[in-house]
Amino acid sequence: MRVLGVDPGLTRCGVGVVEGVAGRPLTMIAVGVVRTSSDAELGARLVAIEQGIEQWLDDHRPECVAVERVFSQHNVRTVMGTAQASAVAMLCAARRGLPVVLHTPSEVKAAVTGSGRADKAQVGAMVTRLLRLAAPPRPADAADALALAICHIWRAPIQNRLQQAVAQHTAKGRTA
Amino acid sequence: MRVLGVDPGLTRCGVGVVEGVAGRPLTMIAVGVVRTSSDAELGARLVAIEQGIEQWLDDHRPECVAVERVFSQHNVRTVMGTAQASAVAMLCAARRGLPVVLHTPSEVKAAVTGSGRADKAQVGAMVTRLLRLAAPPRPADAADALALAICHIWRAPIQNRLQQAVAQHTAKGRTA
Repeated sequence: MRVLGVDPGLTRCGVGVVEGVAGRPLTMIAVGVVRTSSDAELGARLVAIEQGIEQWLDDHRPECVAVERVFSQHNVRTVMGTAQASAVAMLCAARRGLPVVLHTPSEVKAAVTGSGRADKAQVGAMVTRLLRLAAPPRPADAADALALAICHIWRAPIQNRLQQAVAQHTAKGRTA
Repeated sequence: MRVLGVDPGLTRCGVGVVEGVAGRPLTMIAVGVVRTSSDAELGARLVAIEQGIEQWLDDHRPECVAVERVFSQHNVRTVMGTAQASAVAMLCAARRGLPVVLHTPSEVKAAVTGSGRADKAQVGAMVTRLLRLAAPPRPADAADALALAICHIWRAPIQNRLQQAVAQHTAKGRTA
């Protein structure tokens, strides 16, 4: 499974592609950041993010896109920008028929470090170890995007089993 | 000037096209709602909103798009959806090179009713009067989209004068 992880943001949108299956060593395919200037108009910034994400989808052909679920617990202005950037990423993926999965920051932290309250440094260190990199990816948004992709690869089997269980339960309900 | 007003929302995205200039009677060109099902996946809903907005831009060729500025003072889940829908509307407009202008809900209410704290019924009544309609547009999101377009047409001359003043001031600063 090849997954594009997106850590959405207007100024820096972290992007990382990871390939692998749960229980086997994972491979980093690419990592980077889509940047837009805070001097530009909001509409133009969203167009630039769209072009950046499209380029990553074209270049790396992921089967699935994992995006960080946005909460409004933080600074209001930042959250709006994050929600808008995440909408563009989800739109680009869904337009191509790619599945889009959202993971919360604590799900991602718990998946890669074992703790939902791990800090950025800990996430960066584990991403470096799990993908066997020479150094932690910079900036932190890039590392977070890789962590999202790893989280998705590891959680996908559980989510699939849950979906199958729900489907079977529903089917039984219909035939009963 | 022909303006498309967009009252963003995931379930109901109000859209309304108004034509006119400040100080003259305004004309409603069209009004409606882009709807998406709350049962659908978020990515698919954003794609449906994109298709809906594109259709309105194709059909009515506005020169400018006015979008309600989203604040996070309301319900958290609703605000995220609103921010995401507004991002799609801004993206569609900016991709075509159309200017995108954001107005706050209180700017819109103040423009059409004289009070920034007017309720939905008052906004609907004034939109009906200003556009000489037989009845208030339904649902409220559609009326709000028309109010946004009206607000923009009326505020544009003020905004242009402000921009010119700033530009002249800057130019003077350079030559001094």
